[in-house]
Amino acid sequence: MAIAAELFFLDPASAATLQHQLRQQIVEAILDRRFLTGERLPSSRELARHLGISRLTVATAYADLMAQGFLSSRDRSGYFIAEGVQSRPAAPPTNDAEQRADWSRLIGQRFSTSRGRFRNPEWRSYRYPFIYGQADPALFDLAAWRQCSRQALGQSDFNLLTADFYEADDPELVLYITRHLLPRRGIHARPEEVLLTLGAQNALWLSAQVLLNQRRTAVIENPCYPGLRQIVEQTRCHVRPLDVDAEGLPPDQIPQGTDVVFTTASHQCPTNTTMSLARRRDLLERAQHEGFAIVEDDYEFEMSFTNAPSPALKSLDRAESVIYVGSFSKSLFPGLRLGYLVGPTEFLAEARALRALVLRHPPGHLQRTVAYFLSLGHADRQMEHMRRVYAERRAVMEEAIARHRLEIAGAGSGAGGSSFWMRTPPGIDTTRLAQDLLAQDVVIEPGPDFFFDPEPQPQHYRLAYSSIPSERIAEGIARISGAIERAKT
Amino acid sequence: MAIAAELFFLDPASAATLQHQLRQQIVEAILDRRFLTGERLPSSRELARHLGISRLTVATAYADLMAQGFLSSRDRSGYFIAEGVQSRPAAPPTNDAEQRADWSRLIGQRFSTSRGRFRNPEWRSYRYPFIYGQADPALFDLAAWRQCSRQALGQSDFNLLTADFYEADDPELVLYITRHLLPRRGIHARPEEVLLTLGAQNALWLSAQVLLNQRRTAVIENPCYPGLRQIVEQTRCHVRPLDVDAEGLPPDQIPQGTDVVFTTASHQCPTNTTMSLARRRDLLERAQHEGFAIVEDDYEFEMSFTNAPSPALKSLDRAESVIYVGSFSKSLFPGLRLGYLVGPTEFLAEARALRALVLRHPPGHLQRTVAYFLSLGHADRQMEHMRRVYAERRAVMEEAIARHRLEIAGAGSGAGGSSFWMRTPPGIDTTRLAQDLLAQDVVIEPGPDFFFDPEPQPQHYRLAYSSIPSERIAEGIARISGAIERAKT
Repeated sequence: MAIAAELFFLDPASAATLQHQLRQQIVEAILDRRFLTGERLPSSRELARHLGISRLTVATAYADLMAQGFLSSRDRSGYFIAEGVQSRPAAPPTNDAEQRADWSRLIGQRFSTSRGRFRNPEWRSYRYPFIYGQADPALFDLAAWRQCSRQALGQSDFNLLTADFYEADDPELVLYITRHLLPRRGIHARPEEVLLTLGAQNALWLSAQVLLNQRRTAVIENPCYPGLRQIVEQTRCHVRPLDVDAEGLPPDQIPQGTDVVFTTASHQCPTNTTMSLARRRDLLERAQHEGFAIVEDDYEFEMSFTNAPSPALKSLDRAESVIYVGSFSKSLFPGLRLGYLVGPTEFLAEARALRALVLRHPPGHLQRTVAYFLSLGHADRQMEHMRRVYAERRAVMEEAIARHRLEIAGAGSGAGGSSFWMRTPPGIDTTRLAQDLLAQDVVIEPGPDFFFDPEPQPQHYRLAYSSIPSERIAEGIARISGAIERAKT
Repeated sequence: MAIAAELFFLDPASAATLQHQLRQQIVEAILDRRFLTGERLPSSRELARHLGISRLTVATAYADLMAQGFLSSRDRSGYFIAEGVQSRPAAPPTNDAEQRADWSRLIGQRFSTSRGRFRNPEWRSYRYPFIYGQADPALFDLAAWRQCSRQALGQSDFNLLTADFYEADDPELVLYITRHLLPRRGIHARPEEVLLTLGAQNALWLSAQVLLNQRRTAVIENPCYPGLRQIVEQTRCHVRPLDVDAEGLPPDQIPQGTDVVFTTASHQCPTNTTMSLARRRDLLERAQHEGFAIVEDDYEFEMSFTNAPSPALKSLDRAESVIYVGSFSKSLFPGLRLGYLVGPTEFLAEARALRALVLRHPPGHLQRTVAYFLSLGHADRQMEHMRRVYAERRAVMEEAIARHRLEIAGAGSGAGGSSFWMRTPPGIDTTRLAQDLLAQDVVIEPGPDFFFDPEPQPQHYRLAYSSIPSERIAEGIARISGAIERAKT
């Protein structure tokens, strides 16, 4: 590999000669292992021109370094970093600890939390990954996506690709969402009531920022999506977790003085229950009378296996109390990082301004690729396929769960989704269970992280089937059952 | 166009019959113009299956609606929305104003500001767009980008495309940045000291969030990038704007008790001045002794027309006081929305956690496409080309500016960049000037938005040449000169 001339600088204010500076730079780079044995230095002509100095200066520096053994020369092909000069270990950072800036003091706000999620980025290397929310290569129409991406890279879409369009979104994608996606959820919205976001995570974050502050009170479901809990806690508002039951969030438990209620009404995360119609009406009425806003994360509605999924909570919302959060992570793939917010224009103006401040807008090319993928019907076809495959996997899961007498804690058959919310017998720590199972090639998600206060008896865990092939499910469940049995004794 | 069966829902709790509900839904959709004249309804068989009701119920509803004139039928090809039923204007929103949620109260934090930027999303439709920071289709190698994008959509990169990789980035792009981009700026960083962001805007925002709070003090340059001013003001910290002069920010003016200094040392925005080496050393020494952090936005360094751009401020930073902000918006295109932060690991851990909370990570596919575009040398080749073209445009600009005796307020010849910072004679309001020029097909950027306090005499404006072809520059400058002359009288 050739070392570029652009890597060299001279300091005009330095007391050292130009030649000395040059030699010093090369030696330091070698000792820091930035220049590696065998790499070629720029020619003396090239480097001299780049630095605006005499070629002789460079040639002399090179010759000196060769004499010292740092460089070698091969015929007429130039100077190379010599062998053997990097035998000593890489130099430690030269900073004197006393002189170093005090970052523990300089940091004005902390966002890293001690309560880390149990997430295994290496899950693909395990044979039985009961992991949630990741894409299965076998279920994604990569060829169609590639075609749409190419189309969105056409000359006619150049502006959309390259331009900073300030606060705006791709009008084609927004129109498709209002005309085709939202009506399927029973929602009628105008384009100015839709804002694209960097995934549902970003949509929830923007909503929390606009709606909450230190004097406000937020209700969240318990258990709930851990990402939401972190978002809400970060606003430093008062958080009231409400335990969900078989009908989801109980509206009659919402305390007076609540400002915002976050809910996954159609498909509670992680229990998969669906909020009953009676509770939905009750929730909306309370929102109207008590004056709180509702943020509806329309989580995984696409994965309903019944013929007609229940309409979104927002479809019943006459008073415009509901902010709706949609996502393409489940219907397309999570790495896409695209979602959207639907809400009243007053709210959306603030969310849009905040989005512009934080990141401007989601990349235009991605927005247009999704618009093509949706409007050409690829997404629908793929969802059909995923629903069939997931239904089959779910049946295999249920059979294996029943055979091994594992307990389903959340909603069971017919609830759809892509996971089961499970419970072990008492006295088993699911975080340790998950650790033990890794040694047996099995990945499960322990439950504690979904709860607002860590459970005294952390018995819950989640088993997802979006990324595990049907034929491995039975063996995977058998191993989980075996591990639970061993943990009991 | 066919209307999808998925758009229909039934409410099991409704007192109305199924047939009545169905008819009502169709009529409402027609009157709301969600179903348009000529669109075909789903077949009665399809809709009955979707809703889980008798086919006769659907057929009866359709027949009734046809009798009422809402639907028409063509031979045996199905039912269509009839002509003429949409003659009355679209119905107003059905919400009763009294019942509507009170969003002025529900919003807990406001982010929209009254001081809007003068930004014209329609700039492409003007013949003389002296507009900053947008890509010129003639200067971008779209074919090479398309090729890299296709490569990054290959099966081998599938995980990178689709996976939610939590807090991580594309290791290939990070490695390229540390091995090839940063050394050109004189910076040596390890991969764990680099964080990808949604553009430089996002990098600045993350830095401000981590470093500032209501009790902290931030120094910003005056004038400065308006996006930074908004970011810093939003943290509600104490803001101290420091007037820049011909050598950039004066470090001896930094007040005691400062916590963070934001600077565009290599290329001050918007004046294009370069901070002198003496001031850089002074700034770094003060940072170390007075204990403040520096955020260096390495703005447009690629656009230097001298042979060797001065190294970044961070390259001199022995005490690790400097957070470095890099961007691909100028070297690639602004719509890409990719940038990066380089800084001490303690700082980066907080920025990474905040990024995960706000948006997880920039889309993997984009990261990998950029990694390919850079490592295959396309970016370097393109930058070479852009530098040549910009140098030529700059010469044409300078000539025209001199001919019309317009005044350059910032750095002049040799400073590089892609714009001139200009000043009109006294008594001319540049915001009004910019408005007047639109009528003459010319877009300029008025200066007031760059200043912390609006100028008493708003005489400044910016003329950029990144998006205007050389041959139009002379005429554009002539029109600006003419408009200034007319405004004087």
